[in-house]
Amino acid sequence: MIEMENEQRTELSELGEFALIDLLTEKCSLVNPSSVKGVGDDAAVIDNSGFQTIVSKDLLVEGIHFDLMYTPLKHLGYKLAVVNFSDMAAMNARPKQLLVGIAVSNRFSVEAIEELYEGIRLACDAYQVDLVGGDTTSSNSGLFISATVIGQCTTERICYRSGASENDLVCVSGDLGGAYMGLLLLEREKAVFRADPSIQPDLDGFDYVLSRQLKPEARMDIVDELEKAGVVPTSMIDISDGLASEILHLCKASSLGCRIFETKIPMDPTTIRVAEEFRMVPSVAALNGGEDYELLFTIRQADFEKIRQIEAITVIGHMTATSGEAVMLTIDDQIIPLKAQGWDGLRHEELS
Amino acid sequence: MIEMENEQRTELSELGEFALIDLLTEKCSLVNPSSVKGVGDDAAVIDNSGFQTIVSKDLLVEGIHFDLMYTPLKHLGYKLAVVNFSDMAAMNARPKQLLVGIAVSNRFSVEAIEELYEGIRLACDAYQVDLVGGDTTSSNSGLFISATVIGQCTTERICYRSGASENDLVCVSGDLGGAYMGLLLLEREKAVFRADPSIQPDLDGFDYVLSRQLKPEARMDIVDELEKAGVVPTSMIDISDGLASEILHLCKASSLGCRIFETKIPMDPTTIRVAEEFRMVPSVAALNGGEDYELLFTIRQADFEKIRQIEAITVIGHMTATSGEAVMLTIDDQIIPLKAQGWDGLRHEELS
Repeated sequence: MIEMENEQRTELSELGEFALIDLLTEKCSLVNPSSVKGVGDDAAVIDNSGFQTIVSKDLLVEGIHFDLMYTPLKHLGYKLAVVNFSDMAAMNARPKQLLVGIAVSNRFSVEAIEELYEGIRLACDAYQVDLVGGDTTSSNSGLFISATVIGQCTTERICYRSGASENDLVCVSGDLGGAYMGLLLLEREKAVFRADPSIQPDLDGFDYVLSRQLKPEARMDIVDELEKAGVVPTSMIDISDGLASEILHLCKASSLGCRIFETKIPMDPTTIRVAEEFRMVPSVAALNGGEDYELLFTIRQADFEKIRQIEAITVIGHMTATSGEAVMLTIDDQIIPLKAQGWDGLRHEELS
Repeated sequence: MIEMENEQRTELSELGEFALIDLLTEKCSLVNPSSVKGVGDDAAVIDNSGFQTIVSKDLLVEGIHFDLMYTPLKHLGYKLAVVNFSDMAAMNARPKQLLVGIAVSNRFSVEAIEELYEGIRLACDAYQVDLVGGDTTSSNSGLFISATVIGQCTTERICYRSGASENDLVCVSGDLGGAYMGLLLLEREKAVFRADPSIQPDLDGFDYVLSRQLKPEARMDIVDELEKAGVVPTSMIDISDGLASEILHLCKASSLGCRIFETKIPMDPTTIRVAEEFRMVPSVAALNGGEDYELLFTIRQADFEKIRQIEAITVIGHMTATSGEAVMLTIDDQIIPLKAQGWDGLRHEELS
């Protein structure tokens, strides 16, 4: 009955997630003094005279972000919560409250939804976060989960994506690429199972990468260690879409280039073994695979001595001048430009 | 590949939305000192030593909460924002920040999503709220919108659903039932259009109820008026599911009964005319129809003189003792118990 006013039609897939967010939010200006930081970082920042409230939200869609064929609902709930807590870690903040909304079709039983919430509660207990609200409603198909996390941080310790300077050291926590290798394994076993349901999944010896995919953790321990070491990163982000995509976010927000070293990228032996099994260069899993939820951050060179004792932190390169590109020096000494080939919620639909 | 641990299967429709929320949240206890109020009110409350941050979230699902056949996307965006602002009004708080997440199928163009955001921005401008974040991703079917609103209120002025005392006056703002009559009209025209697309919709003279449905407003003016009058309601809620359902929430949370008077329920002449056209007792539209987004609140009798000059507020009854039921005295002097027949996100699926 109602005609669209615009005749032009641009496909969402032409734009991609980040360009769409830019388009939709370019007209957003902030009017309230308490709105310190709006769109464009891992979370929004709200001032409360002295310390700040950090807020972030995420939307998970069945068939896009998770496949219930190999994701137990309890794990899904845990991961949903942790992914949001990781957004707080990415701001150098600590998560305090969580709100969860679900839209669910009648394919799901109450018991299934309880499983999901059991996972959310486990994560809240583990991270000392309060589940303070939400919304449940029905959907005509599938499961949609929306989470909002609220955290706290003192004004001086907040880390944005912007803020890095030339020659700052680029650091990552933990190791990378594991979650993506876990996903590939699960997808392979799903295909095998579909072809012949009598074949039992063969996942022995892959515990590490499977848990990286199914039960990720937020690196609150790194937030704690950095505080103990007296270091405030100059910029920070969590690695949800792959190292390449995230480091480009830091470069763009800080108006800088960077140089990282392939040989320095921390990877677990299991990740390397699975990558080779899939005939993939291991560093590609780290650069383009997503969902590791490690922290990527920059520190002043002067702070290097303070963090070198922290085992879970690896320096992988440094920031370069504004005119510089974001590049990687490969094992065989080639310089290649970094490209964001990470996971994109909107393009994904086209590919799958 | 993964077996459900529970063999029992309870259908979501057996439980309904509120029972499901109770079930899922009964194990939630709060650990952070800043978590003042969790699940169970219009919004969560977070303490910031002196004033409080109020947070609420909502999930809107295509085909459940809105029908794009008669809802222009710009209106939908406006309504989405306003419905969330209304949750802040229901806490006697003022909305300050908004986060919006959308999951959208490739049926939608970028232009369509821009229309949606245009509506969100219009509402943010009108209510002086900052859009500070969100998330966009794809869905396999339909449009899912999730919004989180953050507001502020001084500790002394916050209104919960609980807090009413015996003999407190029950008040409502504006008039009721209009949004539901607007919905019935739109549904009727949709059915006519489907039967014969050449017939033009006949909606002349129904502007008031249509705008109540398509472009509701949050009663921030009432929050302002109450503050000016020096009145803090003893309990408050916004009317999203119909007067009966909401007043039962106040009674339950305050452990009281109530008595309201059918003759006192404020209704617009257009609402009454449309109700009669649909052969419906007008007060039923107010009691059971949803989405008016007016405020329902209780005040001490001593405060009556302070609010009697506020034109948009009507006293419709009073709270009764704990042992008392929630009842309505009808036009023909019968006493009937109030029942929640308002809109229920989970049962709805069964009915439609």
